[in-house]
Amino acid sequence: MSGLRIDLNSDLGEGFGIWRLGDDDALLDLVSSANVACGFHAGDPDILRRVCDRAAERGVAIGAQVSYRDLAGFGRRSVDVPPATLTNEVLYQLGALEAFARTAGSRVSYLKPHGALYNRIVTDETQAAAVVAAVLAYDRGLPVLGLPGSAWLRLAAEAGLTVITEAFADRGYTPAATLVPRSEPGALITDVDAVARRVLGMIMDQRVRAVDGSEVAISARSVCVHGDSPGAVAMAMAVRQALINAGVEIAPFVEQR
Amino acid sequence: MSGLRIDLNSDLGEGFGIWRLGDDDALLDLVSSANVACGFHAGDPDILRRVCDRAAERGVAIGAQVSYRDLAGFGRRSVDVPPATLTNEVLYQLGALEAFARTAGSRVSYLKPHGALYNRIVTDETQAAAVVAAVLAYDRGLPVLGLPGSAWLRLAAEAGLTVITEAFADRGYTPAATLVPRSEPGALITDVDAVARRVLGMIMDQRVRAVDGSEVAISARSVCVHGDSPGAVAMAMAVRQALINAGVEIAPFVEQR
Amino acid sequence: MSGLRIDLNSDLGEGFGIWRLGDDDALLDLVSSANVACGFHAGDPDILRRVCDRAAERGVAIGAQVSYRDLAGFGRRSVDVPPATLTNEVLYQLGALEAFARTAGSRVSYLKPHGALYNRIVTDETQAAAVVAAVLAYDRGLPVLGLPGSAWLRLAAEAGLTVITEAFADRGYTPAATLVPRSEPGALITDVDAVARRVLGMIMDQRVRAVDGSEVAISARSVCVHGDSPGAVAMAMAVRQALINAGVEIAPFVEQR
Amino acid sequence: MSGLRIDLNSDLGEGFGIWRLGDDDALLDLVSSANVACGFHAGDPDILRRVCDRAAERGVAIGAQVSYRDLAGFGRRSVDVPPATLTNEVLYQLGALEAFARTAGSRVSYLKPHGALYNRIVTDETQAAAVVAAVLAYDRGLPVLGLPGSAWLRLAAEAGLTVITEAFADRGYTPAATLVPRSEPGALITDVDAVARRVLGMIMDQRVRAVDGSEVAISARSVCVHGDSPGAVAMAMAVRQALINAGVEIAPFVEQR
Repeated sequence: MSGLRIDLNSDLGEGFGIWRLGDDDALLDLVSSANVACGFHAGDPDILRRVCDRAAERGVAIGAQVSYRDLAGFGRRSVDVPPATLTNEVLYQLGALEAFARTAGSRVSYLKPHGALYNRIVTDETQAAAVVAAVLAYDRGLPVLGLPGSAWLRLAAEAGLTVITEAFADRGYTPAATLVPRSEPGALITDVDAVARRVLGMIMDQRVRAVDGSEVAISARSVCVHGDSPGAVAMAMAVRQALINAGVEIAPFVEQR
Repeated sequence: MSGLRIDLNSDLGEGFGIWRLGDDDALLDLVSSANVACGFHAGDPDILRRVCDRAAERGVAIGAQVSYRDLAGFGRRSVDVPPATLTNEVLYQLGALEAFARTAGSRVSYLKPHGALYNRIVTDETQAAAVVAAVLAYDRGLPVLGLPGSAWLRLAAEAGLTVITEAFADRGYTPAATLVPRSEPGALITDVDAVARRVLGMIMDQRVRAVDGSEVAISARSVCVHGDSPGAVAMAMAVRQALINAGVEIAPFVEQR
Repeated sequence: MSGLRIDLNSDLGEGFGIWRLGDDDALLDLVSSANVACGFHAGDPDILRRVCDRAAERGVAIGAQVSYRDLAGFGRRSVDVPPATLTNEVLYQLGALEAFARTAGSRVSYLKPHGALYNRIVTDETQAAAVVAAVLAYDRGLPVLGLPGSAWLRLAAEAGLTVITEAFADRGYTPAATLVPRSEPGALITDVDAVARRVLGMIMDQRVRAVDGSEVAISARSVCVHGDSPGAVAMAMAVRQALINAGVEIAPFVEQR
Repeated sequence: MSGLRIDLNSDLGEGFGIWRLGDDDALLDLVSSANVACGFHAGDPDILRRVCDRAAERGVAIGAQVSYRDLAGFGRRSVDVPPATLTNEVLYQLGALEAFARTAGSRVSYLKPHGALYNRIVTDETQAAAVVAAVLAYDRGLPVLGLPGSAWLRLAAEAGLTVITEAFADRGYTPAATLVPRSEPGALITDVDAVARRVLGMIMDQRVRAVDGSEVAISARSVCVHGDSPGAVAMAMAVRQALINAGVEIAPFVEQR
């Protein structure tokens, strides 16, 4: 063992009604933290129940993947929701997921915003503060997950919350350590081995090669592997195996009982 | 004081978005238990927040008014939802409301089904058992509110739950102590004084006059006053005053901290 | 050519937002009539646009697959919706689909109820009459598709509507020519060749072998092939090929311009 | 008679399910054009049916008040919906409303965007073009209603659509003839007589007094009276009476059959 330890997180439970997205069961055997959709962009009560039960059985941490209220757009449309309403919408989702986490013998261990909300509060301080306010109202001990350097994590830290930074396994980075926008070349790395090597580098050396070839420092206590793309399971498996082979322990950043 | 004590419950928080139904603020000064809509037939996060905050300030108990998922029909359409799904839908609503009750410094103190679900589980044992299963999974100590003689309360009691019976202030009763269907004459009593007198009789004498003129025995630890009809506030006020004048204490059936 | 002609219909456009169900594009090359979900159990505006455009390009007839308002349950839960509301909900769906059919240079050519509504109006005359009322209000010339012997088709015929009977390619039949309930053995025929042979028999001989081995008469101007099961495309392809090999023409029952 | 003619438009049908907003029936006796909510921010099939029936009976023109898909926010939250999706969402709403307009013996006579969409396409050319594209696809002869000087009306005119400008009866104007933002003083004029006088001035003199006391030119073929504020009916009535007293004819800008 290298003595190193990392968390792997993935978006799960993102079906609705008859529809499914991604292979929840396969990913639950590979990741240590499940970002569970709470019903606003995806996720219905049956799905929440099933994902929470299986996560708890496997010692996978349950996180609230909170979103704008937008089933039709999968939470990928930025919405000018008033901040007080955003706070309450986050509270609603936290509580709903908690019922299933508790029923499964676990608890909601962290919060990670989804989609357009995730992206917006990288810079939008008003909405970022609204999400922080929800966590403060709900449980000041609840860690929050997000992008290093985001307004979201900065405001959360200033409010006294535990902030957890994440890196993205298959996303390209700029020399400034931000993500390459999806519309630009190099945004997505699809080669499974390359992704596994990058993740290893992020953990072992705390560095990643940027799109321009330069090396940038990166610091992450969790790595996000995508759950909904074709080949998602194979990629998560490769990342996991590479970490294990290198003696890195994969475990939630929040201790599971 | 007569030494008698009764709970007054009313449906609250039954707006959605821009729309409102009933005068929540006025009723919160009159009742001791608030059946708070949880978002499935009515109620959005802003409304849940506000009603819970005000209920907690006044020592009014917060109950989960759970429903079929049916905003368009206000939960008044019976739905053949599979029992496992119904269990999970109730859990989802319980958890969502709990987040706001806790934020307000209170907690969800009881559960009362709404509308078509309330009516259906008077006789439908499968759906009744599904709601009971949700309470068992959530918190075996959570009291449930319902109609005396219903399958719902019978199955809840058999499962070891605390069951609370309720009477209806302004509904007509049959000689068999069931409610006169809304489509029949005598279903609704609209005279405020008559309603106040009936409620007094229910509490003091445990009797009510049925539509045929006979007196029937009635036993209720809570009395439901409607919140959404025109004159609802005036009627609740009259009932409350009559009880107070008779020395009956109005208090939640679950002690509020 | 045998001189025989049959319509093949299939449920299409049954995704929502990010989610998909079945392979719309493949099926549109195989069937002659597309039962297009209208947004109440599935189908969003982007999906309606795409399916209508492609159906029109291929000369596939566009039918309104109307449903209860139930995205979470995929329209598979019977709902006690008041008849006047059901009429209006059907009108809403008809109009919404029509906008896309017209934009594509086609039109809504028929109506077929979906899921729990389809099943309920086999016997429920009140809801059947409510759907008939919608068609009468919308366009008395609009054909309706359904199960032979259903209250739905009987009331539609009595009201002067054009009724089109359908058979099911892969469903078992009772000796009384009704469908074997899905919960019973023999409800579903999964062997592709067997299904193709059955459909041929239905068209050429107007007979099908029932679960008890007896032969029952069947009369259908359209055959429903499922779109959402695994192997749906292969089965539709086999049915289509068997019909073509036997010289049966596959064409919509409503002439396409 | 002055020979002058003006259209009065108002937002109608903005309830949902059990909830109501404004007094549709009263306003239908006062206005000449009804901006009917189509189900995305408000409006359900029962409401659409009723409003269309009554509008048609009174010769009131039926307009499609199209919105972002946002019941919870009443369409008042700007949403970054992709333009192609916005086009299709507008088509869906147009078609749905058309079914009820036709059933009532009328037709959809114009389109007016609602709420946040209305405001956004004053300047957002991408979304404005998406709404224009929907009208082009649906019916090139369909007039569109909007704010003079907006990107929306400019792009619509460039595309060959008939554009109708509107003024607001009770909103304050800047010296530049734009609306005073709702957050600033003078945004709303609540004095009924003052509003009636302003509308008269807009029609007779094509001028209105701005918040700074200056007079600005205004040109409108339709005047919007609000339907959902307290006193809305009284204000609409005062405006109507003042116009009639001045010999101005109140009539839809699109001839009703």
